[in-house]
Amino acid sequence: MKTRAAVAFEAKKPLEIVELDLEGPKTGEVLVEIKATGICHTDAYTLDGLDSEGIFPSILGHEGAGIVREIGAGVTSVAVGDHVIPLYTPECRQCKSCLSRKTNLCTAIRATQGKGLMPDGTSRFSYKGKPVAHYMGCSTFSNFTVLPEIALAKIRKDAPFESACYIGCGVTTGVGAVTNTAKVEPGANVIVFGLGGIGLNVIQGAKLVGANMIVGVDINPAREEWGKKFGMTHFVNPKSITGDIVAHLVELTGGGADYTFDCTGNTTVMRQALESCHRGWGESIIIGVAEAGKEIATRPFQLVTGRVWKGTAFGGARGRTDVPKIVDWYMDKKIQIDPMITHKLPLERINEAFDLMHKGESIRSVVVY
Amino acid sequence: MKTRAAVAFEAKKPLEIVELDLEGPKTGEVLVEIKATGICHTDAYTLDGLDSEGIFPSILGHEGAGIVREIGAGVTSVAVGDHVIPLYTPECRQCKSCLSRKTNLCTAIRATQGKGLMPDGTSRFSYKGKPVAHYMGCSTFSNFTVLPEIALAKIRKDAPFESACYIGCGVTTGVGAVTNTAKVEPGANVIVFGLGGIGLNVIQGAKLVGANMIVGVDINPAREEWGKKFGMTHFVNPKSITGDIVAHLVELTGGGADYTFDCTGNTTVMRQALESCHRGWGESIIIGVAEAGKEIATRPFQLVTGRVWKGTAFGGARGRTDVPKIVDWYMDKKIQIDPMITHKLPLERINEAFDLMHKGESIRSVVVY
Repeated sequence: MKTRAAVAFEAKKPLEIVELDLEGPKTGEVLVEIKATGICHTDAYTLDGLDSEGIFPSILGHEGAGIVREIGAGVTSVAVGDHVIPLYTPECRQCKSCLSRKTNLCTAIRATQGKGLMPDGTSRFSYKGKPVAHYMGCSTFSNFTVLPEIALAKIRKDAPFESACYIGCGVTTGVGAVTNTAKVEPGANVIVFGLGGIGLNVIQGAKLVGANMIVGVDINPAREEWGKKFGMTHFVNPKSITGDIVAHLVELTGGGADYTFDCTGNTTVMRQALESCHRGWGESIIIGVAEAGKEIATRPFQLVTGRVWKGTAFGGARGRTDVPKIVDWYMDKKIQIDPMITHKLPLERINEAFDLMHKGESIRSVVVY
Repeated sequence: MKTRAAVAFEAKKPLEIVELDLEGPKTGEVLVEIKATGICHTDAYTLDGLDSEGIFPSILGHEGAGIVREIGAGVTSVAVGDHVIPLYTPECRQCKSCLSRKTNLCTAIRATQGKGLMPDGTSRFSYKGKPVAHYMGCSTFSNFTVLPEIALAKIRKDAPFESACYIGCGVTTGVGAVTNTAKVEPGANVIVFGLGGIGLNVIQGAKLVGANMIVGVDINPAREEWGKKFGMTHFVNPKSITGDIVAHLVELTGGGADYTFDCTGNTTVMRQALESCHRGWGESIIIGVAEAGKEIATRPFQLVTGRVWKGTAFGGARGRTDVPKIVDWYMDKKIQIDPMITHKLPLERINEAFDLMHKGESIRSVVVY
């Protein structure tokens, strides 16, 4: 079949909207009509050529929602007509990782996914007879895409696609970092570094679980207003602080936070986040993706005196199990998504969404097909 | 009263055995006759002038066992004649840390202890009329010493002092890092870097809790024999490995260890320990004390893909609660101590114990009064 898609033909070039050829689903695979997709920093990271493992040409996009249109042989967990969210972190429920009960980082299809291929080692996309790579196993910048069954979360049909798609990455990453990775308990003090989309979702996750102080840290003063919308109790702009930001935050939280979250990708901030933790038990969670080659550092004394350094990917969520629950939280108004969707665009204007993100003018832009 | 003690008059000089004046216990304090004391790397670290906060003259030693000889006003938890182990990490059961249920790092007397003083801001020791500092709140290189009640673990009377004293630091630090900090579960794979006294205690802790592989790593081939005595299942000498030690250990453990422990104090090894952890869930625990100013570093990707970096002090043990249990484990032969006590010396020969440690010839030397 044919499908319309925004293709990344080269690094550092705008996406091009073209009509591609798409092969139907093979055994264990599913054809999905994408109804909406968010544009995430990770897409920009790859498009900007910063990901040394980036593949071109490819179809980016990993934050979508849509409808199952066809299933391949052996598919049992979804049916034609089901509403689904594609999962860049699949959940096979059979690999060592899935069975460990300790991680969400399913390894079933990791090798081929990293190469832009389906599990059988080929691509379903082609343009003028030449293969075009999948991306993060999702490729939601295509109106139709093919995914392995284990990479689809089935969600309720009353959830609107244009907000539910954000649960495919940003919402789950931020809220899940709080609920799954940190397991923040009621009454805890939390500091969130970086109040972009992920940071705001960490804030609302912290509010959801009954945190006490929810301190937001950002050098953009406009983000104070945003933080407050989602439950932030205190705002700190490092540019307005005289002296050390860590000392300021430790003072503000009465000895340091119980949990801190880095949502900046800046390794200097990651260190500040660790060192703003309370002696004895504070845990710092790295969410942001750092530039290639950058390292984090601290004195080991920080850890020996009880601080814990962790990271999270996809909010520690097991996608098929947890994503439908987060959709429920949204529909039950336990968490908000709509105010974060600052821009909606047709596929033809997808490059504008990248511009808005780079300028810091959007929290999240969504392409609606 | 008078007491015999080994005094550190200056950094980098041998200890001197002298007779000191010792004031009796004030309110909440206890006079203890030390019957035996271990000599630990931390004592050497201070004596060698490496601790920027080291105080001289002082009475070192923090790994002792003895008998209560007198109690001050208000003391209720120990009585004259009780056998006790001094605690450099006290347990007041009332401070924010003790009540957090998340850490053993009681802060009740931290400020004065760090200054070599009793909680009232004075020293009980003096020599020729001038005060001599306490050390780590213990000063077990003195035959008699005064401690706050909250810094004494009451232990059973049938435990021999000359082995029980080792529970005051090394045994609890190593075994506790496994049981309290890492909470290693049966069947887990463990790697221990550095097979000195702490490393051997980590090994026997891992054996105690039913670990599967217990891999010991040391550049000293003589330590293979030692590791095996306490439950090590595999030995790796980095000097005999061609290629990367991390890759070797990940291969050996089928993807990385569930838990790794640094018992070297070397920040390069600390990084190897983290990176030898299994993707998704491996936890690395720093036990060793690094040189002043040294930092640990890694790529944040290591944490984002699920590894956890932690540290531990005194094995995460709440001293008054946990130390008596570890004494029981020893008396019940669940853990071994006697083979680790390689040298026993009278106080007059205490400087020899430092020499043996520096030469790597002892696992633990104990002074018996």
